[in-house]
Amino acid sequence: MNEVDFIQSLAAQHGASKHPQVVLGIGDDAGILRLRDSRDVVLTTDILTEGVDFTFPEADPFSVGRKALAVNLSDMAAMACRPVAALVGLVIPQTIREGGLAGITESIMEGIATLANTWSVALLGGDTNSWAMPQGTVISITIVGEPFPGIRPVTRSGAKPGDILLVTGTLGGSIYGKQFHFTPRLREAEILARSTNITAMIDLSDGLAKDARHIATASDVQIQIDAAALPLAAAAGHDWKRALTDGEDFELCFTCAPDAAASLLQEQPLAPLLITKIGKIETKSGSGSPLHIKHPDGQVEQLNLSGYEHQWSEA
Amino acid sequence: MNEVDFIQSLAAQHGASKHPQVVLGIGDDAGILRLRDSRDVVLTTDILTEGVDFTFPEADPFSVGRKALAVNLSDMAAMACRPVAALVGLVIPQTIREGGLAGITESIMEGIATLANTWSVALLGGDTNSWAMPQGTVISITIVGEPFPGIRPVTRSGAKPGDILLVTGTLGGSIYGKQFHFTPRLREAEILARSTNITAMIDLSDGLAKDARHIATASDVQIQIDAAALPLAAAAGHDWKRALTDGEDFELCFTCAPDAAASLLQEQPLAPLLITKIGKIETKSGSGSPLHIKHPDGQVEQLNLSGYEHQWSEA
Repeated sequence: MNEVDFIQSLAAQHGASKHPQVVLGIGDDAGILRLRDSRDVVLTTDILTEGVDFTFPEADPFSVGRKALAVNLSDMAAMACRPVAALVGLVIPQTIREGGLAGITESIMEGIATLANTWSVALLGGDTNSWAMPQGTVISITIVGEPFPGIRPVTRSGAKPGDILLVTGTLGGSIYGKQFHFTPRLREAEILARSTNITAMIDLSDGLAKDARHIATASDVQIQIDAAALPLAAAAGHDWKRALTDGEDFELCFTCAPDAAASLLQEQPLAPLLITKIGKIETKSGSGSPLHIKHPDGQVEQLNLSGYEHQWSEA
Repeated sequence: MNEVDFIQSLAAQHGASKHPQVVLGIGDDAGILRLRDSRDVVLTTDILTEGVDFTFPEADPFSVGRKALAVNLSDMAAMACRPVAALVGLVIPQTIREGGLAGITESIMEGIATLANTWSVALLGGDTNSWAMPQGTVISITIVGEPFPGIRPVTRSGAKPGDILLVTGTLGGSIYGKQFHFTPRLREAEILARSTNITAMIDLSDGLAKDARHIATASDVQIQIDAAALPLAAAAGHDWKRALTDGEDFELCFTCAPDAAASLLQEQPLAPLLITKIGKIETKSGSGSPLHIKHPDGQVEQLNLSGYEHQWSEA
């Protein structure tokens, strides 16, 4: 069985090849997808690397494949857009390949295909390669999406002074399991964007401090995070710094006007998933860091990127 | 400079970020592209791996980057579609990265960006990673395209008995240089598809014997290739078997009705690039190989996949 056959059979097995928007599926020089009602295509790519993003046998291959797709779906959620199809590039060690494409490789593809099926994402293309490198697995996934009908994609750059900073779910400690098993917040993003004028949004992959900073920089504003308000995951213990610096929570962090925020906080349209107010957007003051932390004791600290990486690395 | 900044600066430097179809460029959770006049998105992905597809220092990094994009553009040409944007995944050894992102990595990106610029392809997204693996460079590229206005994409599956098999340019010996410096036949594909009802098309990446076989299988027909008619590249010497089995010519192989073929052969609309008739499409006979070779002495050989890989491996 060659590479295309392998990916094709996985796609067929999981029904992705019968996707209503697929005009031409895997097996030709390219795949063709028909958008539903827009000419706007939304695209994002992520590459996961063995020894950096995961290690075998600590991680199971199914979960690694699932995560490789899930991180991309999370990016699509952060845009409040709908994923339609995925293209997969897979490089695997020859030692695995010589086991007959079964085992690890098949499990990775199963993890990808199973999650793709859950979200009606078609596997539209793929390329695989094997090499002599031990511990040399690389998974590269590109997601193709489209805006939900009637909803404009949400970028990082629309936050305005006076807006409120909110977050879904709880934060911190995802390294103890959630990083592999999180649900991309696609449904939540659609509900939020339909009900509310979300001014900016990002998914929390690198940790709240870094990701909120991305919103601040892209929107040219200053953000103050209220440490006492942070919704801590059980896995974070009671350490609010973990909620700021731990990565891979894959929750949504977003901004909107105060009245819209008040409605969301009262109505909690994502229940049982909680929406929490964690800070506010301010006018940029000076050339310092655009990220300020209000400690539980009321003191406000200007947080430099190098600052929390050094100071807080033990957190 | 982090990964996104790096790819972003390359994209800006090469003007790709000013592409008229880019609604949202690199730097957010996803990029957004607006199709010109269709809702059909054409997608293909290829992954190039050090030690398999190229080796350093034999290959220069600029050429490797260029080729990584070029093989994808060649797939787009094979569909007679127009490339619009590319997403790049790059994994590089830490030993290279610690050299400050200069050197090999920058050259790879320059090779990609330069060719992207030539074809007005926007760099819409990217992700990079570095790892401890020496000789561990991986380049994964996904191309996003659209049909040319008024032209239907050409698949591998439309060849009909009675059709003629044609090829652009010359074949064989591409390993001696052309594999890195070929021009993707995008312009040629558009001219062909505008002037002629091309029934099936593929780009020659794995060698004519394998690629013609893909057309035969997808179209459920039999193909007879006339060895004496094969247009040999100078690098192929005078060995017609090289034209059949050497890979990476990246010419177009296509089929059309006899009258259409006669017009193309007479008018030669791609001149100075030659269009050559190299065979014909027949009704499938029996369950044997769908690929038949007419030797220069007139003898017709049924060519099994394993057959030419063994028998002809010295060619």
